Amino acid sequence: MEYHDKLGLSREKFEEISEYLHENSYEGRAYRHLPGYRKSVEKGTVLIDDTVVRGFPKIPRCLVLDAGIPQQFDESIAVEEKLNGYNVRVARIEGDVLGFTRSGIVCPFTTHKVRSLLPVDRFFDHHPDRMLCGEMIGPENPYTVEECYDVDSIAFRAFDIRDHVSGEPLPVLDRREICEEFDIPQTELFGTYEPAEAVESTPEIVRELDAERREGIVMQTLSGSQQLKYTTSAANQGDLAFAFTFPFDYGREFSFRRLIREGFQSVEFEESASRRRERAHGLGESLLLPMTESIEQIESGERIGEQHTVRAEPRVVDALLEHFRDQGLTISIETDRRIEGERLLTFTKRIQRTNDKTEAYLNGTIVKE
Amino acid sequence: MEYHDKLGLSREKFEEISEYLHENSYEGRAYRHLPGYRKSVEKGTVLIDDTVVRGFPKIPRCLVLDAGIPQQFDESIAVEEKLNGYNVRVARIEGDVLGFTRSGIVCPFTTHKVRSLLPVDRFFDHHPDRMLCGEMIGPENPYTVEECYDVDSIAFRAFDIRDHVSGEPLPVLDRREICEEFDIPQTELFGTYEPAEAVESTPEIVRELDAERREGIVMQTLSGSQQLKYTTSAANQGDLAFAFTFPFDYGREFSFRRLIREGFQSVEFEESASRRRERAHGLGESLLLPMTESIEQIESGERIGEQHTVRAEPRVVDALLEHFRDQGLTISIETDRRIEGERLLTFTKRIQRTNDKTEAYLNGTIVKE
Repeated sequence: MEYHDKLGLSREKFEEISEYLHENSYEGRAYRHLPGYRKSVEKGTVLIDDTVVRGFPKIPRCLVLDAGIPQQFDESIAVEEKLNGYNVRVARIEGDVLGFTRSGIVCPFTTHKVRSLLPVDRFFDHHPDRMLCGEMIGPENPYTVEECYDVDSIAFRAFDIRDHVSGEPLPVLDRREICEEFDIPQTELFGTYEPAEAVESTPEIVRELDAERREGIVMQTLSGSQQLKYTTSAANQGDLAFAFTFPFDYGREFSFRRLIREGFQSVEFEESASRRRERAHGLGESLLLPMTESIEQIESGERIGEQHTVRAEPRVVDALLEHFRDQGLTISIETDRRIEGERLLTFTKRIQRTNDKTEAYLNGTIVKE
Repeated sequence: MEYHDKLGLSREKFEEISEYLHENSYEGRAYRHLPGYRKSVEKGTVLIDDTVVRGFPKIPRCLVLDAGIPQQFDESIAVEEKLNGYNVRVARIEGDVLGFTRSGIVCPFTTHKVRSLLPVDRFFDHHPDRMLCGEMIGPENPYTVEECYDVDSIAFRAFDIRDHVSGEPLPVLDRREICEEFDIPQTELFGTYEPAEAVESTPEIVRELDAERREGIVMQTLSGSQQLKYTTSAANQGDLAFAFTFPFDYGREFSFRRLIREGFQSVEFEESASRRRERAHGLGESLLLPMTESIEQIESGERIGEQHTVRAEPRVVDALLEHFRDQGLTISIETDRRIEGERLLTFTKRIQRTNDKTEAYLNGTIVKE
């Protein structure tokens, strides 16, 4: 079977998509992946060793639970926690367990971590055609920074098991049972509900998650066929704070969408004037404080960047740094220590535009706008 | 002399620009105007009765006074108030005094107001080739809403006198003297400074304007050849509040730029942590409160729009409404009263996207983003 058959595409359609595939390799093994959104194939889809690792589908979102849930669902749904980390797919390809990031890149660090954190051999012996989808969370990871979970370094939480070629999901409760059976940590299930019940129950779940600064919920039919997500104010404001740490590097769209979400949530939650004002203050702080901090750092002569910490065997950290270099990222090492045979590395990914633009404005650059 | 000569353009360049000119007429008199920004000719430039009314130049802006002022100027500058209203140019064309808006449209309301508010006959008898440039401010005007000035209905404040064909400005102090001589109200002059002095003095001027919720300052060389503007936090936040009353109708760029200005100002003004937090809270309120108010109005079944009030002779108000209809605007009348022979009309300009999008999200529309 050829790739286009596995992807369910005509040969012509596949040719079209092929133009957008990037070539890459991992430990000498070549693969191609689709880093961006296309209509006919999921972002992050990988072609490797004559098989496919299907991209994780984009989960649609509603801005209003009350109306969005009945709009999207007319059968029972499971409500689970949406975690704030980075999305990985784990699959066994020709005997090797690999960890793929959202855009379809084999990440050496992730690959190492999932192999050591999860019972991958046992799982893939039983489920050779499946991929395990989940979130890598915790403070020591190379892609995101989120401190709200009770995780010291880094951990995996499963939220899906899918056929790695077709992307077809297992039903939610079957998937949860399998994770249980294999001792694979998984995202929290808040319950299964009829749509009308979910409309009643989800606001309270969201409020509780928000109070712990957690990200939100994913709702889906029990078959996993239809999904819907919704995020907390903490997540919206956290994203804004991140974006405004690097204001010239993050899209206006990115920030605008999160501002809008805050507006609809405040209305749906029927906030009192004082509660709404509190949200507004949090919103303003999430924009202004990171931005001014960055401007001040640049003013004082520093360059700002995205800082991350990772902890792993030295060879894994080396592989990660090489991987970043291959991707064209500029990394500077902040601290580098050995602790109990592991390397604890804090590094900064260089970002360009915010440094350049901010410096220019600080130097008096005139704007014609 | 042909138009291209008057504009200082080659015939070919003029042909190019001609494509972007819009045709229009005022009381049976045809004219063409340039509504958008082009490289070779100022936005708002008008071709009428074989003469030109040059567009008002876009004033460049700095984000940091301390660095921007010396960057832009190496000679004495005048610092005057930047007013928050709408920009008009007044010129006498073939014996008729006309009021042009920023984009070069003859506005019947503005034309009427400048004729009745200003000693136009006497002024143009002495300065037939000049145009009087200024801001229309006050609560009763059809384009902007700003209540911070001590103006009951609407008033004119001069900030420039230019040759209406070439756009060449009069020196600042000459212009101020002429306004004085003709009793033409003008924008406030805070002083003339060397650039280094201006760096010292302008932050305090801006702070005082901000405390009165006024807009900002325009700095320029005494000859008027080089200009630079800078706005208060009140203006930035006021613009944001306006934009987030109609979040889907105003550009992301528009809002982003104002957020950025707040960041640079907070840093330049070396705000204490508590003062900065206060600014952040104001910022958040200017985004969230108007947005939630709009969402709630739409949720309750109303349509939102931009509301304005005008007061004038009945025939002038009629002409304004017809003018808006000609421009394709949908206007609904809110209240319509007669007071001492004048018509006091409150109307709403319909806006589309925010109503449509908000309604869709309230109805559960799913976002794939």
